[in-house]
Amino acid sequence: MNEITMRLNADPLILQALREDITSEDCSTNAVMPEKKQGQVQLIAKADGVIAGLFVFERVFKLLDETTQVKFCCKDGDEVKKGQNIGVIIGDVRVLLSGERTALNYLQRMSGIATYTREVVNLLKGTKTTLLDTRKTTPNMRIFEKYAVKVGGASNHRYNLSDGILLKDNHIDAAGGIKKAVDMARAYAPFVRKIEIEVEDLSMVKEAVEAGADIIMLDNMTAQKMKEAVDYIAGRAQTECSGNVTKEMIPSIINSGVDFISSGALTHSAKILDLSLKHLKVLDR
Amino acid sequence: MNEITMRLNADPLILQALREDITSEDCSTNAVMPEKKQGQVQLIAKADGVIAGLFVFERVFKLLDETTQVKFCCKDGDEVKKGQNIGVIIGDVRVLLSGERTALNYLQRMSGIATYTREVVNLLKGTKTTLLDTRKTTPNMRIFEKYAVKVGGASNHRYNLSDGILLKDNHIDAAGGIKKAVDMARAYAPFVRKIEIEVEDLSMVKEAVEAGADIIMLDNMTAQKMKEAVDYIAGRAQTECSGNVTKEMIPSIINSGVDFISSGALTHSAKILDLSLKHLKVLDR
Amino acid sequence: MNEITMRLNADPLILQALREDITSEDCSTNAVMPEKKQGQVQLIAKADGVIAGLFVFERVFKLLDETTQVKFCCKDGDEVKKGQNIGVIIGDVRVLLSGERTALNYLQRMSGIATYTREVVNLLKGTKTTLLDTRKTTPNMRIFEKYAVKVGGASNHRYNLSDGILLKDNHIDAAGGIKKAVDMARAYAPFVRKIEIEVEDLSMVKEAVEAGADIIMLDNMTAQKMKEAVDYIAGRAQTECSGNVTKEMIPSIINSGVDFISSGALTHSAKILDLSLKHLKVLDR
Amino acid sequence: MNEITMRLNADPLILQALREDITSEDCSTNAVMPEKKQGQVQLIAKADGVIAGLFVFERVFKLLDETTQVKFCCKDGDEVKKGQNIGVIIGDVRVLLSGERTALNYLQRMSGIATYTREVVNLLKGTKTTLLDTRKTTPNMRIFEKYAVKVGGASNHRYNLSDGILLKDNHIDAAGGIKKAVDMARAYAPFVRKIEIEVEDLSMVKEAVEAGADIIMLDNMTAQKMKEAVDYIAGRAQTECSGNVTKEMIPSIINSGVDFISSGALTHSAKILDLSLKHLKVLDR
Amino acid sequence: MNEITMRLNADPLILQALREDITSEDCSTNAVMPEKKQGQVQLIAKADGVIAGLFVFERVFKLLDETTQVKFCCKDGDEVKKGQNIGVIIGDVRVLLSGERTALNYLQRMSGIATYTREVVNLLKGTKTTLLDTRKTTPNMRIFEKYAVKVGGASNHRYNLSDGILLKDNHIDAAGGIKKAVDMARAYAPFVRKIEIEVEDLSMVKEAVEAGADIIMLDNMTAQKMKEAVDYIAGRAQTECSGNVTKEMIPSIINSGVDFISSGALTHSAKILDLSLKHLKVLDR
Amino acid sequence: MNEITMRLNADPLILQALREDITSEDCSTNAVMPEKKQGQVQLIAKADGVIAGLFVFERVFKLLDETTQVKFCCKDGDEVKKGQNIGVIIGDVRVLLSGERTALNYLQRMSGIATYTREVVNLLKGTKTTLLDTRKTTPNMRIFEKYAVKVGGASNHRYNLSDGILLKDNHIDAAGGIKKAVDMARAYAPFVRKIEIEVEDLSMVKEAVEAGADIIMLDNMTAQKMKEAVDYIAGRAQTECSGNVTKEMIPSIINSGVDFISSGALTHSAKILDLSLKHLKVLDR
Repeated sequence: MNEITMRLNADPLILQALREDITSEDCSTNAVMPEKKQGQVQLIAKADGVIAGLFVFERVFKLLDETTQVKFCCKDGDEVKKGQNIGVIIGDVRVLLSGERTALNYLQRMSGIATYTREVVNLLKGTKTTLLDTRKTTPNMRIFEKYAVKVGGASNHRYNLSDGILLKDNHIDAAGGIKKAVDMARAYAPFVRKIEIEVEDLSMVKEAVEAGADIIMLDNMTAQKMKEAVDYIAGRAQTECSGNVTKEMIPSIINSGVDFISSGALTHSAKILDLSLKHLKVLDR
Repeated sequence: MNEITMRLNADPLILQALREDITSEDCSTNAVMPEKKQGQVQLIAKADGVIAGLFVFERVFKLLDETTQVKFCCKDGDEVKKGQNIGVIIGDVRVLLSGERTALNYLQRMSGIATYTREVVNLLKGTKTTLLDTRKTTPNMRIFEKYAVKVGGASNHRYNLSDGILLKDNHIDAAGGIKKAVDMARAYAPFVRKIEIEVEDLSMVKEAVEAGADIIMLDNMTAQKMKEAVDYIAGRAQTECSGNVTKEMIPSIINSGVDFISSGALTHSAKILDLSLKHLKVLDR
Repeated sequence: MNEITMRLNADPLILQALREDITSEDCSTNAVMPEKKQGQVQLIAKADGVIAGLFVFERVFKLLDETTQVKFCCKDGDEVKKGQNIGVIIGDVRVLLSGERTALNYLQRMSGIATYTREVVNLLKGTKTTLLDTRKTTPNMRIFEKYAVKVGGASNHRYNLSDGILLKDNHIDAAGGIKKAVDMARAYAPFVRKIEIEVEDLSMVKEAVEAGADIIMLDNMTAQKMKEAVDYIAGRAQTECSGNVTKEMIPSIINSGVDFISSGALTHSAKILDLSLKHLKVLDR
Repeated sequence: MNEITMRLNADPLILQALREDITSEDCSTNAVMPEKKQGQVQLIAKADGVIAGLFVFERVFKLLDETTQVKFCCKDGDEVKKGQNIGVIIGDVRVLLSGERTALNYLQRMSGIATYTREVVNLLKGTKTTLLDTRKTTPNMRIFEKYAVKVGGASNHRYNLSDGILLKDNHIDAAGGIKKAVDMARAYAPFVRKIEIEVEDLSMVKEAVEAGADIIMLDNMTAQKMKEAVDYIAGRAQTECSGNVTKEMIPSIINSGVDFISSGALTHSAKILDLSLKHLKVLDR
Repeated sequence: MNEITMRLNADPLILQALREDITSEDCSTNAVMPEKKQGQVQLIAKADGVIAGLFVFERVFKLLDETTQVKFCCKDGDEVKKGQNIGVIIGDVRVLLSGERTALNYLQRMSGIATYTREVVNLLKGTKTTLLDTRKTTPNMRIFEKYAVKVGGASNHRYNLSDGILLKDNHIDAAGGIKKAVDMARAYAPFVRKIEIEVEDLSMVKEAVEAGADIIMLDNMTAQKMKEAVDYIAGRAQTECSGNVTKEMIPSIINSGVDFISSGALTHSAKILDLSLKHLKVLDR
Repeated sequence: MNEITMRLNADPLILQALREDITSEDCSTNAVMPEKKQGQVQLIAKADGVIAGLFVFERVFKLLDETTQVKFCCKDGDEVKKGQNIGVIIGDVRVLLSGERTALNYLQRMSGIATYTREVVNLLKGTKTTLLDTRKTTPNMRIFEKYAVKVGGASNHRYNLSDGILLKDNHIDAAGGIKKAVDMARAYAPFVRKIEIEVEDLSMVKEAVEAGADIIMLDNMTAQKMKEAVDYIAGRAQTECSGNVTKEMIPSIINSGVDFISSGALTHSAKILDLSLKHLKVLDR
């Protein structure tokens, strides 16, 4: 995610989130701060973790008032410690107060995902296996959550249904078999797409290889079966391990030799990283 | 949430989520299913929990094709068991396949929140204390997450910054003291708002009572201090306990006698409930 | 309303109003002024009244060109006299001409409301009664009209159906009685909401007090009956007088002792304040 | 306005108005009516006037639930009497309650405009002069207000800046004279546009005729001067009288012989027509 | 089109086009250019033609990053030659790469239309006939295509169905004859509209003149018939020739004496002008 | 494109196009047809070609009134002849008249693209080369134009910048060479993306093969050089010929042996197919 993506795709979502929180006005803030006054507030880590989404955090305040200044002491991907000062926001006190919750809601979730992802990635160190996310993201949060996964050190699977081919059991049924499904996909899809197919046992693996699939997803197979599958495929397709993968499961599958492991838990079950805005100072009393 | 809220406030978000997942077309589905065919698929629980958001799940498919039929064997708030059949969706196979992920992304998160909320509510049974959510919701998911909290058995705190007054430490600083803050809020806010103020120790509690606050939030206080505060307040204001409340903390604060406990964890750290669409059958081959 | 509300909630409405007036281009202006030239124009009061909405007026021109300069000689809430110069707008002549009507349409309506509200507020001077608005606002103008009411010196009732509880005759019927309605509302609504109920006679007043309503609205009652009601309630709830209240009616109800009087006429029947842009000068011929 | 305009241009505005009133949910209604029940309610006139906007009123309820039935006893343009039953709405009680205010806010304003317009039109009966509206409409209400003017019996002036040429004093200044302004407009504007120019005295009238203006607007001229202008023009252009025209002013200008009189007051200063929803009955207890 | 139209009406379309091309991110650019670096690129003509839409081209880059600088060596309406350097764009390399295609897609189409229009206009030189466009524009491109027609030297017909009256054969049928149609239009339409009617033979021409039409469109008539029609009309209405007019047809109709010729081909069948961004230089390696 | 894509992605564009043409109302139609009357009209081909977009055409009318019936005598991809009756539309006459232009504007453009594409595809018959489109589509028309290309018999290249990797000269420069560019893309992009790189001569071809590119685009090379390149590559990557490819150029490149030829002309320079709505009959006079 860069400034272009931010402006085109993230800004509308951030504004929408702000409007979710402020439908008419921020009544509490406007009551106690009727006029514009300059102030500052600190962003503090309240737990250890990997920070992700600093520029989304910043953007929340900038969208409320582009003159707000945000200075960070670290950058996306850095590990922060409980109690650490992460940055300072300087601007109209009302902007600091009204934007606080939305800014933190983004940053806490994104950092929580990065933190959990980093833990799983660390377990895979020394192997040739790459960790991937899935489409099990929170509705209207995908752009943020997929970015957080990258910050955590994993890679992205396809972004959505339009930019990748993944033929699952239901697609295979609909097509009438693995070979037919792969053929239909190759005939239909833009030629720049790789074709991935989900299989559940070795006979399906064989069919998939013969059909010429680019990627073979080994779904809910035992570590042993996966290893056999990888050996059989022998580089004729890329291999992906899938199916309720969590941090706890990694040790049991780490030696299967698959190229990729995809885990929905990265985005759907990571806890947030606890962060807080503290020590507001009104500067121009 | 009823049909009116669904249509006015939830439908645009659901459509946006579908467009997040389908920016041009669902390439895999369209490849293997070039024409409309009737089919059905089962919704299955893959873990124990409380189901929440069935009509959001249904709405995803209806927004793709209003003739889709969805039949549920249970209703929001029911406990479901691993392996249990929750419902069946009947319609255009392409609609079933293209809507699956978005429908599950909503239902899994909402059910996860309801499940966790129910666990905390159960710990509070027998007390007069009501469990509340916070504004620590996922951006652009508040309407769904606050509903899931209610399904789980807790109550909602204010919806957003516009419909409730909550004066936190920073507001008190900005106003120049508790009394001033409460007075300013009373003068400024629509008269239908109750005024809540956050305090951290007993001297602040006293000030808050004298200022005539309607609700006093006891923030990050020990169970002992909370009890003293509640005794002092003696019904002159409602009391709310707040500050990183999780399921694990409940036993230690259960006897403080507060009217309300609010917990951000309900919405920001609940794991999803694992659910799946299985056994797709094409009906009109 | 402050800069945050302006940006989040008012800007989209102002842009929409500009697009209502300019669907392709301002043909007259573009014909006679093919190039950008700097100019200025005066904002003049053509009648006596209370000015409200100056920053909305300014925003119209800034949204067309952020370099436009607007200088006012007075501020929201000031009384202006017929013929008085209120301000000057300096910028691209085409911006001045194309934005004129939309800017005045907002300012005239908002000032008309503030003017009428001030007249009613003045009649209530010396009493303890506060004047309130209602939800009888012009569609898609509520944020501007409720602000104008405050500028005029009155207070706001609830903003909309989502942020206040008001149980009217139809709600009471639906619930099956006053007590049931109040109980259902208390059980359902976020706990930060006060509960208001509409009554029409003294027996309903008694029921409302017993049910523990926070606010009792005395609807279309005679001054005499209202007084009796207020005496009976005796501070156990706040009281609000409602029902086709206009400026002309105030004297007859002024001694009833109610805490609040709400008047739909403030927003639905105030005449505009006549204002005009005059004396355009092209500065860089 | 017909069904096409309704769907393309009015529906989005009506939905926006509903969302202005229901940002999360209708809390009062949902509290007392947790389930769908069929009911009906009467639309009653509480004052005499001309009804306008019945199908907008109906559309509010249909947009909340398309199965709502609305039956009217009269049609747009009919005169209604205080106490008269105008129609009945039958549907989900929650839809009736949640849509009530928005539906009435539209209908009351539109009917108020139609009522006032009819009064002015009646004063012009027997003359050849046609009454016109202006662009002094409420922001984001133009489509409804211009329709109400037609229902009242007057005609519409241009819809907005894009579909008509009107050269005012400022445009003439910018162009450097009447002839230049008319020439520039003729050269620039789509050839289907008539060209109208605003003049203030007889010498300007002469210039306008010589320049070949299609319509000459006589702005703020005395009745006597207007008559002289009309005589001079002698059919070489259409004539329009403008400038703070209200009902009270009509008698003094009625004999000037102008083709058109335009009045901003029709849309900016008409009072609403008082209407009410009464006698809600829950049908399926 | 000026800066106001650009901001109100063109900006949303340009942003939408950018989002059509970048639904999540520009993957190629972000891969090779992970950080912001300043660069420049040349805009080069690859064929001869008339340039149109330079400020739309510029706006694409400014909407991605307002600090982008664009310098042109020519202006809209200038003829450019193959190989000619038209301008330079300086800014963030990622903005140059990500905006390139959308910027060129606009500029190439608009310039293609201007080029073709200029060719037809040149054929009409020396006559009193004005060339017009039609509503046969590309959906959601009208504001750009109608502007390009003006740059090419032709004039615009009505912008859309709302701002001009054109009674075609189907309207005449619906009304029950030419006179009825003209009368109904005069009674219904805002009085600032001219009334145009389409006719196919001389007897219809006569009816149209008698009905008082402002403009008579001679549809698909031979040059000879058109001449007779123009002679008969003799200035009592303006005349417009219509019906599949292309560049090739002009010589045969040039002497008919019609006031206007309208051609859908200007916008629906012009080829693009080939243009390219070349010679990217990264400035701050 | 299927019904799901239509609803999610095409409907908003079609509605926007309708609003482009009807900003307030269809004045001509509403004048002559004040009430709803049933009617029908024929869709006629006025030239030979390939029809594409029938369901978009139909959708225009259905979006105005879902009860409109549209019956076609042929289907997308069929060749139609001048004078041939393609279908009939039955519904509210006002819907037929108001939707006509927008419906035809889509259908004519889409059919023009399909017609031109079919001509080029026919030239490639008997070879193993597949014809592709590009991103040189009309802004906000891509979904329609890429579909028309498929109807014409060609295949789609990537949909946009987010779903395919194509490293052009500027990307290679930015990365500092072909190998670096390919490596960076492989490291950065989601693993489901194929990596395509643009080359201009044989030495670049060699580098590209060594870097492991999945697809090599031979840009603006002579037929002879292309052949050499294809021979050198020898199946180690897919090959694509690109660079101002038009129908006229095909014979010269047909024997180069490339896998794909991409042509921007398919979408940016095809003429429309002339179509018309004729013979409107009002059915319920």
